[in-house]
Amino acid sequence: MRLVLHLLKREPQDVLLFAQVMKELVENVRYCRTCHNLSDEEECAICKNPKRDHATVCVVESIQDVMAIEATQQYNGVYHVLGGIISPMDGIGPQDLEIQSLVERANKGDIEEIILALSPTMEGDTTCFYIYRKLADMDLKVTTLARGVAQNDQLHYTDEITLGRSIVDRRPFSA
Amino acid sequence: MRLVLHLLKREPQDVLLFAQVMKELVENVRYCRTCHNLSDEEECAICKNPKRDHATVCVVESIQDVMAIEATQQYNGVYHVLGGIISPMDGIGPQDLEIQSLVERANKGDIEEIILALSPTMEGDTTCFYIYRKLADMDLKVTTLARGVAQNDQLHYTDEITLGRSIVDRRPFSA
Repeated sequence: MRLVLHLLKREPQDVLLFAQVMKELVENVRYCRTCHNLSDEEECAICKNPKRDHATVCVVESIQDVMAIEATQQYNGVYHVLGGIISPMDGIGPQDLEIQSLVERANKGDIEEIILALSPTMEGDTTCFYIYRKLADMDLKVTTLARGVAQNDQLHYTDEITLGRSIVDRRPFSA
Repeated sequence: MRLVLHLLKREPQDVLLFAQVMKELVENVRYCRTCHNLSDEEECAICKNPKRDHATVCVVESIQDVMAIEATQQYNGVYHVLGGIISPMDGIGPQDLEIQSLVERANKGDIEEIILALSPTMEGDTTCFYIYRKLADMDLKVTTLARGVAQNDQLHYTDEITLGRSIVDRRPFSA
């Protein structure tokens, strides 16, 4: 309703242009055939970039997560977008996700490390475990994101599991 | 005002008892001479416990942080409560905190590891760095809490610094 009322207030040609752009969006957007990231060509800009480390693949749930990790400027490998996570409650199983294509990528043997960068939730952990078992026989390193206290968090407001993990996983202090 | 009105509604002997308890609180509460945690004796229950690992000392800002870490049930060492963190804005310098007594404890040579478990804020980091320099010449390990994504956080809502850190500090996946 708010959208319709807003559109009626705009000039008709603006609305037509908006409709045209939406049509083009749906018709022209493609996904990278390698990593399933958004792309306007067969392969996305990250997969095509020769300066990126193609032996390290970061497995993420969605395109938003690619954007979030790119924004950190701390990662120079490539990605693999699953398009969701395993969630029996929502009827999403492994066959609905890009897991088989990840296994095929790994089978080619060019990959040295797969980083499972899924959200540390029940569904994320389940999906990590499923993928880990699929990759278990292969000669590659499987890693996962560090868990711990977040920047600027107050220690006594941090949940018990995270705080406990951050003590167990403590690391040498570096100045 | 709310407290006064509430007290006037109660039985006089209840209020007198409450006043007595407050008096005893102020007069009888003591702090552990070793770790400065709350205690009703010379040494607190944690410092006196022979089952705890007295070679590992966890440095925290406050008594609340001792409680938070104890609640995780992941730590079996002892503590050192600083009683605050270095904060020039609030006029709190190193001499206002229990840093000198920590250095003296470390100088005795029974400590193998000091865990700097301060909040990952600007003040916390400053205090960590100050203590680290004070301990630099000693033969002991100085560690700090792992930083990373918190349990049940959604990845794309995690701040850039924390997410970047969790990628750089990634660890082998363990099922």
